[in-house]
Amino acid sequence: MSMSVRRVFFVSDHTGITVETLGRGLLSQFDHIEFVRETLPFVDDASKVEAALARITAAAAEDGVRPVVISSLADPALRDRLARAPALVMDVFDRFLPPLQAELGTPPAGAVGRLHGVGGAYGSRIDAVNFALAHDDGLGQRLHQADVVLIGVSRCGKTPTCLYLALQYGLYAANVPLTAEDFERGRLPSALDVVRAKLFGLSIRPERLHQIREERRPGSSYAALATCQREVQAAEALFRRLDIPYLDSTNMSVEEIASSLVHRQGLRPRL
Amino acid sequence: MSMSVRRVFFVSDHTGITVETLGRGLLSQFDHIEFVRETLPFVDDASKVEAALARITAAAAEDGVRPVVISSLADPALRDRLARAPALVMDVFDRFLPPLQAELGTPPAGAVGRLHGVGGAYGSRIDAVNFALAHDDGLGQRLHQADVVLIGVSRCGKTPTCLYLALQYGLYAANVPLTAEDFERGRLPSALDVVRAKLFGLSIRPERLHQIREERRPGSSYAALATCQREVQAAEALFRRLDIPYLDSTNMSVEEIASSLVHRQGLRPRL
Repeated sequence: MSMSVRRVFFVSDHTGITVETLGRGLLSQFDHIEFVRETLPFVDDASKVEAALARITAAAAEDGVRPVVISSLADPALRDRLARAPALVMDVFDRFLPPLQAELGTPPAGAVGRLHGVGGAYGSRIDAVNFALAHDDGLGQRLHQADVVLIGVSRCGKTPTCLYLALQYGLYAANVPLTAEDFERGRLPSALDVVRAKLFGLSIRPERLHQIREERRPGSSYAALATCQREVQAAEALFRRLDIPYLDSTNMSVEEIASSLVHRQGLRPRL
Repeated sequence: MSMSVRRVFFVSDHTGITVETLGRGLLSQFDHIEFVRETLPFVDDASKVEAALARITAAAAEDGVRPVVISSLADPALRDRLARAPALVMDVFDRFLPPLQAELGTPPAGAVGRLHGVGGAYGSRIDAVNFALAHDDGLGQRLHQADVVLIGVSRCGKTPTCLYLALQYGLYAANVPLTAEDFERGRLPSALDVVRAKLFGLSIRPERLHQIREERRPGSSYAALATCQREVQAAEALFRRLDIPYLDSTNMSVEEIASSLVHRQGLRPRL
């Protein structure tokens, strides 16, 4: 393995998802180096730390260059053990807790698992996913209970956004498609009257919508660029006329859309 | 606002989801302090940093105690501006980049947005969500394309887990329920023959399953504790006999289940 390839381990006493995401951001700053990543999740006792150490030590010997370890271990004793790895070990708690402790004037608890509540959050997240599934594509009987109702033309990204809002924020998100009939009438479906203040529009560039629809129904009038242009134009005109906030999802990832929406609408996450 | 309540700002040049999660872990170490949190996402230019500074400065004046700011700003110039806030400002890049740069012997790029690719990842995530929705609860025609197929009794958490695997990892996850008929025959549904190596079982404690089913169909035989006990016992016996890996989801959050599964099955995220 040459000097321009580096092994990176993400070690966590929990899922490792946060350190992976954090690490991805940090490593992308060094884009001429090729990183080989490995996640070691649920490292929450001494024996699992020893197993992680063995894995990292073997990689160091194999590569001839020390790996980078980005870790998140709440227990200081486990952090101390991991720090003995033949690697650059950087732990989230080591980096952030000392200044935080000094600022707050009180010592941290140092307990594992404290980070990650289960109970209530679990239930409400499942409830939110069930709500999103039951209120997808105009379905469902409890629209009035939604925290937000996404509207937009078919295939503009409403469903994944609703599911992400449910899974990440525990929000009750419904979605209702806008159709040719709505555009002809120049009005929203009347079912939306009760949730007027919760509406949020999703738009998309017609060229992208055309691509997406073509994959689903090649050569159809539904997928034709002219149809996509007409629908998107009509939807945006409706959003503007009725003063419904909206955004163009074309170049956004699902989490970018969800986060923007939460922020712009001032929604309070239920988790 | 008394000394035992602290304002915390999560400032990000992107969605803020990672710093929120990171911050939640750190702050939970100080559980006798009440934190009032606020996320300021998409702070990606000088004017947005100034707006964030104004918000933080106002909070500091109002509270009479300086806020805590946990931030993730890739652009060093923006970090420098934010550091002028009357607050304890801790940036992810400031904390991790210097040692990483020294280790790698090369300077970071310092570009905003570099952290967060859109293009390909976006498409494959949407594709994965569509796959999960199309292959929920035994449906779908492309089971052979799944990366993993979850099996288990009704309401044990299969659907949210599949959606999380799709949204977080871009994995193609299907799920198929195990029913009384399968247990009587003592065999898996034959549709699963082609994905034998991709099967993963989800189990749950009967008491919890009873609670969940009671919420959906109160007083039904489907929800009765005896039914839940019988089904769970039969499902676990089947998993063991057929040597199908499985886990008990009772005390796990959706992301814990997903992360465990990815790790135990050695799945490679598609994102």
